[in-house]
Amino acid sequence: MSQVMSFIEMRDFLAEQFPQGDQYGVLEALGDGWSEMHLPIDEQHLRPGGTVSGPAMMALADVAMYAALLSKIGPVALAVTTNLNINFLRKPKANMDIVARAEILKVGKRLGVGEVYISSRGEDDPVAHVTLTYSIPEH
Amino acid sequence: MSQVMSFIEMRDFLAEQFPQGDQYGVLEALGDGWSEMHLPIDEQHLRPGGTVSGPAMMALADVAMYAALLSKIGPVALAVTTNLNINFLRKPKANMDIVARAEILKVGKRLGVGEVYISSRGEDDPVAHVTLTYSIPEH
Amino acid sequence: MSQVMSFIEMRDFLAEQFPQGDQYGVLEALGDGWSEMHLPIDEQHLRPGGTVSGPAMMALADVAMYAALLSKIGPVALAVTTNLNINFLRKPKANMDIVARAEILKVGKRLGVGEVYISSRGEDDPVAHVTLTYSIPEH
Amino acid sequence: MSQVMSFIEMRDFLAEQFPQGDQYGVLEALGDGWSEMHLPIDEQHLRPGGTVSGPAMMALADVAMYAALLSKIGPVALAVTTNLNINFLRKPKANMDIVARAEILKVGKRLGVGEVYISSRGEDDPVAHVTLTYSIPEH
Repeated sequence: MSQVMSFIEMRDFLAEQFPQGDQYGVLEALGDGWSEMHLPIDEQHLRPGGTVSGPAMMALADVAMYAALLSKIGPVALAVTTNLNINFLRKPKANMDIVARAEILKVGKRLGVGEVYISSRGEDDPVAHVTLTYSIPEH
Repeated sequence: MSQVMSFIEMRDFLAEQFPQGDQYGVLEALGDGWSEMHLPIDEQHLRPGGTVSGPAMMALADVAMYAALLSKIGPVALAVTTNLNINFLRKPKANMDIVARAEILKVGKRLGVGEVYISSRGEDDPVAHVTLTYSIPEH
Repeated sequence: MSQVMSFIEMRDFLAEQFPQGDQYGVLEALGDGWSEMHLPIDEQHLRPGGTVSGPAMMALADVAMYAALLSKIGPVALAVTTNLNINFLRKPKANMDIVARAEILKVGKRLGVGEVYISSRGEDDPVAHVTLTYSIPEH
Repeated sequence: MSQVMSFIEMRDFLAEQFPQGDQYGVLEALGDGWSEMHLPIDEQHLRPGGTVSGPAMMALADVAMYAALLSKIGPVALAVTTNLNINFLRKPKANMDIVARAEILKVGKRLGVGEVYISSRGEDDPVAHVTLTYSIPEH
């Protein structure tokens, strides 16, 4: 399999699927089986002290993996997350966007599995690492 | 160890820690190593079709486990999640609150581990199952 | 769905599937969506000091979940594990059998999810907690 | 932190810790926060059809992560696994050794987290992906 959706097609598709807007994450780059997205900082994602909350990281990882998966299988809206495992590694930098890079490890007929590294913008060391499984409906 | 915080003490402590209000979840019951919380439905937690989003479930599980853990160790604000694993089992009922029951599996000097069952209000079958690990600072 | 394999049918089926014998675990009880198995202590499962090794616990959990799943769907030999998450909670007692109780959380057309509690024989507190997902072939 | 144990020191240390010999895995390479090991094929690791069993992969991942962690913190024998999450991605090749590459994602004072890719010898696509957490005793 190779890349079946372009950056523009994915950006438009995500905007349709997530009508609440950029708070789900912003697509930055897309390739064959991978995506990069960021989450703009926003009061609702922050904990006291200005660090990004855990659920905000999980939400970003989930969308980034969705984009990475759809880059391989096309706009299958009904792919759903069945498992998510996250290890929180470091405290994110205060008041800084977080960025996610998602990579597909396997796409089968029924399941897609991938991993996501999340970092504070401009930092090398990841703040969290996530693995996800999506169930892919017949398509 | 036995229960070291009452329901009222926990409710007040959570209100201090999560100043953004009830959107983090509402404490319903608390015991020795367990808690029950619910998440009132709210536009921001919903996906198209009216089902509760995955990140909203993860956020509720995280807080419910925090309350269950603190029922054993007291108001240790700086306990932080290090690992969360969630299996999504069924689609939540549309426009229905979700409820979480968290139970501690182990509390050690450094780590607390527990599991959380999440259901739509009034339903028996869980919509998700979560295991979490918290790191407990020296206290 | 209700229980579709009896204790005797399951014991015989597991013996066929695992020709290397009891080292995979011994079926003790079986119900509708649950199983109990134990692993007899054996030099190959022990670490220095006489405690049961982590991989021995994971192997027992995997088989116990397989039996719990097949109690619902029948002898589908080709069901395969896709995800396993284990939290190690306490040190097992030295030179003591471990017992596992597996319970199904969900059986769908494609995936079965369950959890397993592992304890040292005769002890209340679990030494490990495991969640597993099996992929179920068309049957 | 930088690498504090050489390849030779690690090989000798593992041989002491795992007196049952090569069945735990063979160290192939070691660097600053990473290790490569392989598991020689052996009847006890195989399932009918000649593929390597899931527990054999988990056991290899566990040891490879241990070596990667100790490359950073030295011969702390009592570091213990607290969480392991594995996604099984593909069927291993029949009658072929499996190789593991472990990389540390974070080493703190109390916890080390890493990930491991497992492949059949000579194949590019991983057969499994594992994340692990070790608890590090005071040292």
